[in-house]
Amino acid sequence: VVGQSLLQILSERYEELRARYGLGLRLVAVADSTGAVTKASGLNPAQVLQVKKGGGLKGLKDGNYTDDLPGFLGELEADILIDATPTNIVDGEPSYSFIRSAILHGLDVVTVSKGALALYFPALKELAAHRGVVLRFSGTVGGGMPVIEFGKECGRADRLEKIIGVLNGTTNYILSRMEETGQTFREALGEAQRLGYAERDPTLDISGLDTACKITILANEVLGKGATLSDVKVSGIEEIGVDEVRTARERGLAVRLLGVADGRRLEVSPQTVGERDPLAVKGALNAITFKATHSGSHTITGKGAGGPETATSILRDLVAVKKMRVAEASNI
Amino acid sequence: VVGQSLLQILSERYEELRARYGLGLRLVAVADSTGAVTKASGLNPAQVLQVKKGGGLKGLKDGNYTDDLPGFLGELEADILIDATPTNIVDGEPSYSFIRSAILHGLDVVTVSKGALALYFPALKELAAHRGVVLRFSGTVGGGMPVIEFGKECGRADRLEKIIGVLNGTTNYILSRMEETGQTFREALGEAQRLGYAERDPTLDISGLDTACKITILANEVLGKGATLSDVKVSGIEEIGVDEVRTARERGLAVRLLGVADGRRLEVSPQTVGERDPLAVKGALNAITFKATHSGSHTITGKGAGGPETATSILRDLVAVKKMRVAEASNI
Repeated sequence: VVGQSLLQILSERYEELRARYGLGLRLVAVADSTGAVTKASGLNPAQVLQVKKGGGLKGLKDGNYTDDLPGFLGELEADILIDATPTNIVDGEPSYSFIRSAILHGLDVVTVSKGALALYFPALKELAAHRGVVLRFSGTVGGGMPVIEFGKECGRADRLEKIIGVLNGTTNYILSRMEETGQTFREALGEAQRLGYAERDPTLDISGLDTACKITILANEVLGKGATLSDVKVSGIEEIGVDEVRTARERGLAVRLLGVADGRRLEVSPQTVGERDPLAVKGALNAITFKATHSGSHTITGKGAGGPETATSILRDLVAVKKMRVAEASNI
Repeated sequence: VVGQSLLQILSERYEELRARYGLGLRLVAVADSTGAVTKASGLNPAQVLQVKKGGGLKGLKDGNYTDDLPGFLGELEADILIDATPTNIVDGEPSYSFIRSAILHGLDVVTVSKGALALYFPALKELAAHRGVVLRFSGTVGGGMPVIEFGKECGRADRLEKIIGVLNGTTNYILSRMEETGQTFREALGEAQRLGYAERDPTLDISGLDTACKITILANEVLGKGATLSDVKVSGIEEIGVDEVRTARERGLAVRLLGVADGRRLEVSPQTVGERDPLAVKGALNAITFKATHSGSHTITGKGAGGPETATSILRDLVAVKKMRVAEASNI
């Protein structure tokens, strides 16, 4: 979904991206789960998108097809890998092999895939630093919202003490609906699936593991923790009863699935927050509070998912990579 | 209030600021409304604070006293002016003369005062650019929240279309209380004054003019408009009736004083927002939504005022100025 949104943006906004941000992107390779197509002079994003929508990349007549994944990266003259593979929390694949291979070949990396980062964050960051490449991942948390940059800004000249986030839109939609309509968890989940807010297999969301990946990434990048997914104590929302939600509401509270990171804890669990708290966000929205010692609590709220939104986060990362590379070049 | 909070922070966090951010600040002058005390080798922030709390700066035995404001700036060996004078929307003084004089003498400027900026934004920015000095003002909007930086981040690689903000905590407290308790405007204002949320003369807040200053600053700095306070169509909350608030509530809406800036409008007025909208923030909080074409609407919420909070924004600006100056120096 995100990869196709990005192709769409690249085909529609190419001139604007070049004029406004100096991003003259040339697509020298594209890959899906079956193989890759490479072309040194550049593939046409609109054409790639059309072929992909009609089936696999193998149908692309332009360029050279290979099923050597991620081996083709070694043969490629490229500057940046954009990784939009699905999140896999068992072994982080195929994201992990792609990112690792790209770093080893000296490519900067922009990823929106959470698994490899959550499982191997400290190792991947160290590898990137050692090889002098940039590794960015804005789109892994909060979709199109600049959550990581915002968190870092809150900590500038202040000390960040805590991050608390409603980081998963699916579970928040379910909890909001239980609150508003008195539906059971199963009923609200069914509704969320019918409306496209929940996947057919909603395990990653409702178990709290998606939130756990995101809080791991935030804890590392914003709080400077060296943590991985296994450090997070996780419980999901499957056991939340209608009574619990109603009782909370009667007391002016709302049940929310929160990811929490501070000096002691790294935890995901359903908790109650005051209904006036900016975290008591409704529907499929996300909300993340950064608590700093001197400047207080700052919350960012918005849509935490979506193809075009997340693709915009990729662009934001690409602009940042470009900026860093230009700054470096001007220092030589 | 903000100046004293800053002195407090400088006296308590000096070593940390130097170690973590390279900010080895030397206070070569302090001024209040009556005069200034200068000392090239540096004043002691704790001592200045103590004297100021006991009366005027004239009582400070350390350094040289002068009542030549802002003329003393011309005699000073200084790098940065920090302006925390009260907001004056009639002629922007004394902020305007201080900022102008500082820029002309080659000082970088950090201000938390809104009047001069709202009245003369395009001219002051142009003057600063022309003289090669940095002019920053994070603390003018949203207290300790990094609102301006967040807005700019939302627009990176995307097109910002609109800014909508609950930018004044006093009026939001009043409207929230009218909503929750059925109080009239006068009653809620009285309560806000008793609790310290509203000043004895609340004109600037309830008239919408404080919000107008803030939306002018945001429109200029984040949307790139060349606007001044007189371009804003302003109406306040004095005429809001209990019935209006109750009727809105019955329809699932909340009345909020909004500052709005987009391609066409620059406006401050009470409007209704959905009660699930992140802008329907309660109490003295602020909330600002940045709407971008591709990545959607992102809202930042938090306490929009307070001495220590706003002083932290000054520090954030100082760190940014330092960073820019260091980057420049390394490019020579």
